[in-house]
Amino acid sequence: MTSGKFITLEGIDGAGKSTQLAWIVELLEQAGHAVVVTREPGGTPLGEQLRALLLDKSMTMHAETEALLMFAARREHLDKVILPALQQGRWVVSDRFTDASFAYQSGGRGLDVHKLAALERWTLGNLQPDLTLYFDVPVEVGQLRVDQNRPKDRFENEQAEFFRRVRTAYLDRARQFPERIKIIDSSLALADVKTAVERTMQTLISHG
Amino acid sequence: MTSGKFITLEGIDGAGKSTQLAWIVELLEQAGHAVVVTREPGGTPLGEQLRALLLDKSMTMHAETEALLMFAARREHLDKVILPALQQGRWVVSDRFTDASFAYQSGGRGLDVHKLAALERWTLGNLQPDLTLYFDVPVEVGQLRVDQNRPKDRFENEQAEFFRRVRTAYLDRARQFPERIKIIDSSLALADVKTAVERTMQTLISHG
Repeated sequence: MTSGKFITLEGIDGAGKSTQLAWIVELLEQAGHAVVVTREPGGTPLGEQLRALLLDKSMTMHAETEALLMFAARREHLDKVILPALQQGRWVVSDRFTDASFAYQSGGRGLDVHKLAALERWTLGNLQPDLTLYFDVPVEVGQLRVDQNRPKDRFENEQAEFFRRVRTAYLDRARQFPERIKIIDSSLALADVKTAVERTMQTLISHG
Repeated sequence: MTSGKFITLEGIDGAGKSTQLAWIVELLEQAGHAVVVTREPGGTPLGEQLRALLLDKSMTMHAETEALLMFAARREHLDKVILPALQQGRWVVSDRFTDASFAYQSGGRGLDVHKLAALERWTLGNLQPDLTLYFDVPVEVGQLRVDQNRPKDRFENEQAEFFRRVRTAYLDRARQFPERIKIIDSSLALADVKTAVERTMQTLISHG
């Protein structure tokens, strides 16, 4: 059995990841692949408990603590969900992965990018997604799309300047890894974003 | 104001750390020092929540996940408790610190010692305790002293062979850092252990 492929979705809140995730699963299943959908932080019972701590607005923590917790959840996610599924030939689609740490903990919180890269190597070795779709929207557009009536979590509670740094870090990362990370203009109409996603997935699906 | 000193207590359960901790605090306060007592994993609100996850018997996790969580709690402990107290001239006494990760996650769980040392450097830089008292008892003696009626946590639930590896790792570490880590024979009578602790503390207290 051939190994499955690992696809990650990245972007700030309101970039439309959830909507496009459903579309990606549909495309993959139409192509005959078994799909596992997961998310970060989270994805495992321990990871979901860490997610609750990480998003808890009443919790304060050092940026390095936050990074260590993210990678702890990620290590478990890899061991219990991602690697077993890939080895069984399933395709794994994760709503956020390591690029989010570079965007949020480094771009947003200011943690040194080389220090973060060292933690990435410690935790993941050379493992990288086969394809990352980065859904790019201006911060103001993203914020308009997020349900304003829902209580905000510890990250959502940050100011617009924080999310501008997150977006810049995501774009820097996409430029650094152009083969793996594809930028999808998520400020377009929904139908056009879906078309862009389908076109971007085509190569991987036909070679998968 | 001169900086305080950082003292850590190490050993397997039943080695008598709690009893000796009270004695150490008494010795330090008699010498006129302000003392902060803390513990690992834990020491902060976030750390105590991580402690609950780490000790939860129903929780399974990869050895590297466990190490990342321990160091996440430790990073926070350093930032919120240990460094501020030392800077205020207080003495900090912690029931376990990084040597415990070398004993439990490396010795006990088998995590590569160099990999663990890399995580230690990532998290702590060059920070080390000023003095570490390692309370050494044979595993069987330690187990006899632990209240057998209390429900066991995820670590205590391990077999004797696990704790023999933990003890060996503690002893290896004490041999590697003989200036910092002092071995206290904790199988002796309580009064003799107290005397040994007092003698070991004397140099640090008189120079503090």
